Amino acid sequence: MASNQQTEMHPSRWGDPARAQDLPEEARGLVELVFGTTDRPAVVDPPLAPSAIDPAVLAGLADLLGPDHVRTDDQTRRLRTRGKSTPDLLRMRSGDVSDAPDAVVRPSTHDEVAAVLALAVEHHLAVVPFGGGTAVTGGLVARREGFAGVLSLDLVRMKRLVAVDHTSMTATLEPGLRGPEAEALLAAEGLVLGHYPQSWEYASIGGFAATRSSGQSSAGYGRFDALVVGLTVATPRGRLDLGTAPATAAGPDLRQLILGSEGAFGVITAVTVRVRARPTTTLYEGWRWPSFTEGAAAMRTLAQSSLLPTVIRLSDEGETALNLADPGAIGGEGAAGCLMITGFEGTAAAVAAKRAAVTAVLTELGGDPVGEAAGEKWVHGRFDAPYLRDSMLDVGVLVETLETATFWSGVDRLYADVKSALTAALGDPSIVLCHISHVYETGCSLYFTVAAKEADDPLAQWHRAKVAASDAMIAAGATITHHHAIGTDHKPWLAQEIGPLGVSVLRAVKADLDPTGILNPGVLVP
Amino acid sequence: MASNQQTEMHPSRWGDPARAQDLPEEARGLVELVFGTTDRPAVVDPPLAPSAIDPAVLAGLADLLGPDHVRTDDQTRRLRTRGKSTPDLLRMRSGDVSDAPDAVVRPSTHDEVAAVLALAVEHHLAVVPFGGGTAVTGGLVARREGFAGVLSLDLVRMKRLVAVDHTSMTATLEPGLRGPEAEALLAAEGLVLGHYPQSWEYASIGGFAATRSSGQSSAGYGRFDALVVGLTVATPRGRLDLGTAPATAAGPDLRQLILGSEGAFGVITAVTVRVRARPTTTLYEGWRWPSFTEGAAAMRTLAQSSLLPTVIRLSDEGETALNLADPGAIGGEGAAGCLMITGFEGTAAAVAAKRAAVTAVLTELGGDPVGEAAGEKWVHGRFDAPYLRDSMLDVGVLVETLETATFWSGVDRLYADVKSALTAALGDPSIVLCHISHVYETGCSLYFTVAAKEADDPLAQWHRAKVAASDAMIAAGATITHHHAIGTDHKPWLAQEIGPLGVSVLRAVKADLDPTGILNPGVLVP
Repeated sequence: MASNQQTEMHPSRWGDPARAQDLPEEARGLVELVFGTTDRPAVVDPPLAPSAIDPAVLAGLADLLGPDHVRTDDQTRRLRTRGKSTPDLLRMRSGDVSDAPDAVVRPSTHDEVAAVLALAVEHHLAVVPFGGGTAVTGGLVARREGFAGVLSLDLVRMKRLVAVDHTSMTATLEPGLRGPEAEALLAAEGLVLGHYPQSWEYASIGGFAATRSSGQSSAGYGRFDALVVGLTVATPRGRLDLGTAPATAAGPDLRQLILGSEGAFGVITAVTVRVRARPTTTLYEGWRWPSFTEGAAAMRTLAQSSLLPTVIRLSDEGETALNLADPGAIGGEGAAGCLMITGFEGTAAAVAAKRAAVTAVLTELGGDPVGEAAGEKWVHGRFDAPYLRDSMLDVGVLVETLETATFWSGVDRLYADVKSALTAALGDPSIVLCHISHVYETGCSLYFTVAAKEADDPLAQWHRAKVAASDAMIAAGATITHHHAIGTDHKPWLAQEIGPLGVSVLRAVKADLDPTGILNPGVLVP
Repeated sequence: MASNQQTEMHPSRWGDPARAQDLPEEARGLVELVFGTTDRPAVVDPPLAPSAIDPAVLAGLADLLGPDHVRTDDQTRRLRTRGKSTPDLLRMRSGDVSDAPDAVVRPSTHDEVAAVLALAVEHHLAVVPFGGGTAVTGGLVARREGFAGVLSLDLVRMKRLVAVDHTSMTATLEPGLRGPEAEALLAAEGLVLGHYPQSWEYASIGGFAATRSSGQSSAGYGRFDALVVGLTVATPRGRLDLGTAPATAAGPDLRQLILGSEGAFGVITAVTVRVRARPTTTLYEGWRWPSFTEGAAAMRTLAQSSLLPTVIRLSDEGETALNLADPGAIGGEGAAGCLMITGFEGTAAAVAAKRAAVTAVLTELGGDPVGEAAGEKWVHGRFDAPYLRDSMLDVGVLVETLETATFWSGVDRLYADVKSALTAALGDPSIVLCHISHVYETGCSLYFTVAAKEADDPLAQWHRAKVAASDAMIAAGATITHHHAIGTDHKPWLAQEIGPLGVSVLRAVKADLDPTGILNPGVLVP
């Protein structure tokens, strides 16, 4: 795997530049009708201020890593500036590169990471661990004040499959592996990780762990935090090696402090994950439900009967209607209601058995099967939404997502409250869509997508909507994020969610592992 | 539920005094043959030193809780002295009550617990949370030096079912509920928790959480830490309310710091757990395997095929042979090899389907079904082993257990190493038995039972064996405990398992939540 040859994203867009496209003509008509359109070309390659880091310190880093792995050129720094939230893209499109790191360093081993941290402590440089750069909650926007500069610690050279244990079905992966790279290495061993968040094509193993990511197949394979067996972490105070057994009662589970720590407690340098045999059969299909409530109740029944498919997701009426721009896909003309996708992965026998059991339950509950075409359509488009967002931003339509989770008894209220908060804050014309894509015995996630005509200050416009939605989540007793982490954007609500004493514990752990506070300052810890 | 009417255990024995018995005559012959026997009567009701706590402080506690709930009489204090490990029993049998608390307080609400903690901080009293008193690793033996006395904080009055959410399938339980009491309250709602450790008849909900307990049905219902959705904790610095959603990416999971914290970070005052519908069908049966290795491989196949029964356990050749004292139970005369118990709980249809799938796999792998009698025998005797231990101690035979866990690829080595360490340390005559009772996709637990003729100093004798076994576990890369917690006994090995930086994090959390160190001092944190 040629680790330095991978596709870089454009600083102000998602994904492979070759896959970027204008809004398709048929969609443009609809968008024009609903929102009106205004061409909004981005500022291309905004220039950066010179690196603030003392050249002698840069020379020290170069001595450590080799000169090729300490970069201060504008393009490298620009590509490590912020993440891929809509506010991130809007800032970059407007030419605001004020959060650019001063240098990008690329260690290739745990010991090199540790050495970079030691040097950063010595010279009081802020350190921002960088994996895929797909953060959407400000996790790459470190506080600069009080530091002698900001280092982006790019894990791009740490892409090894360190170990595979076919008996225990575990694999140890380095943090810089992107989703497809990790799966390719595992596939060569007949294995699969099965973690497919929408950011999968770019996001990294280290990032999955640091943000408690959840993938589209979470019902079958588990959230990423549930897949993690062990972690190795470099901190300014030394090394942590955690995870000695499949389960233990040896005190608090310290892995769970590192999972979700977003680079603020240490740099994850290896992740041991549970792996499975590669599926030999995959099958995705659609079901139609009269209402979101009935579809959600069916998901709950499956979850509470230990009968979950590998993938299960349910779009609300609005999101379903948008999918129905191609009505053939889910049952032809007149189709309405809510679309559910179920997916099954495994051996042919396991897929057939699970599918039969799921079909029996969904049929009994009033679901209407609409066939495999709907499932295949979802599978083939499942990583494309961020490209569409770019196309919408190009024509002056603000598109963004947010998500939350709650217990089943609170889902109806949470859905109504967040939707109405967003609608009220965004004003007309705007649309708010929702789906459920992660379900558990006790509850589920809600994932909202919004689109609105861009106001004169789209950042302020979105900020109002985000605050309203977040306040509604906390008021409903839900979590501020099911799988997007805290970053800088969610900090005010994290403090409400875990309370002042919870915040105090996070600060105590941070102070212990990172006494001078160089690790991703301003991120996660309120 | 008459919370003050519950059966108290005898200070130096397990369980209901009415169920205590001499070693059965037929077993006594075997024991005599292997070990020789010597009657070892216990010191009855050893006298205590007077309470060291200032009467004015006791009066303050009585003002807080009512005089009936602040006890300093010998018998109440004696019954809160240490736990139920064999060393605990040996000390008590010899009349050593040096670890007795100075007073026993019984708050009935979270606020009363918080008030007790405030008063303890003010007067620098050590506080030992007490649930069922079934600790086996020294979790109730707080350090006395430097404190103005030791308070046993008995949660016996906190036995409410606080809330049930039938939609989300969660229940909020108070910590003082013993296993059967919790199940009785849930049964009235048509629900089951499904957590049955061997200590179930006495152990408490708070203790399950504080020690990361695992029950005999863990394959079906999950370890206790996996059942916990939310926690409320009283600490000297205030209240923690954790667990807002079925899953979240809102930073590190702080619940996982409280689970396994053994009263050293706070007092758990409520636990919200995932519950299930009560099973309508239960079925337990036996399988015979030619060897422990083959039986373990079959367990691994089931775990890695998502085909686990509710209960699955496998005795090694020695433990199986001991069960064969009644050869009719598992397949008649000449039966040998290793006995596996599988248990299925759920609806009739779910039990039938799972049992058929499991039977197909086990048959394919060479297992020999030996029928339901073996399963029923196990079910009916599954909480009895601690009574047998008392009977063995009565005749001068040391009996104790210890347990560990590792990944599948390390099971053979761990089994051999721990067994030979124990055998070598205990010398002749001794026997070392083992079973696997908790299995996961990536590995399993090993639970050892040993019996040896008591030496002149049985505490020293056991200590040597425990050290040898624990060293072997750590050398093999396994965990020092799969489900018995750290207490005071496992602290040296915890430091090896999580490393000096892991210890530092635990100390930082402890210092933050309990700045004056009153909570279970000396327990858990190295």
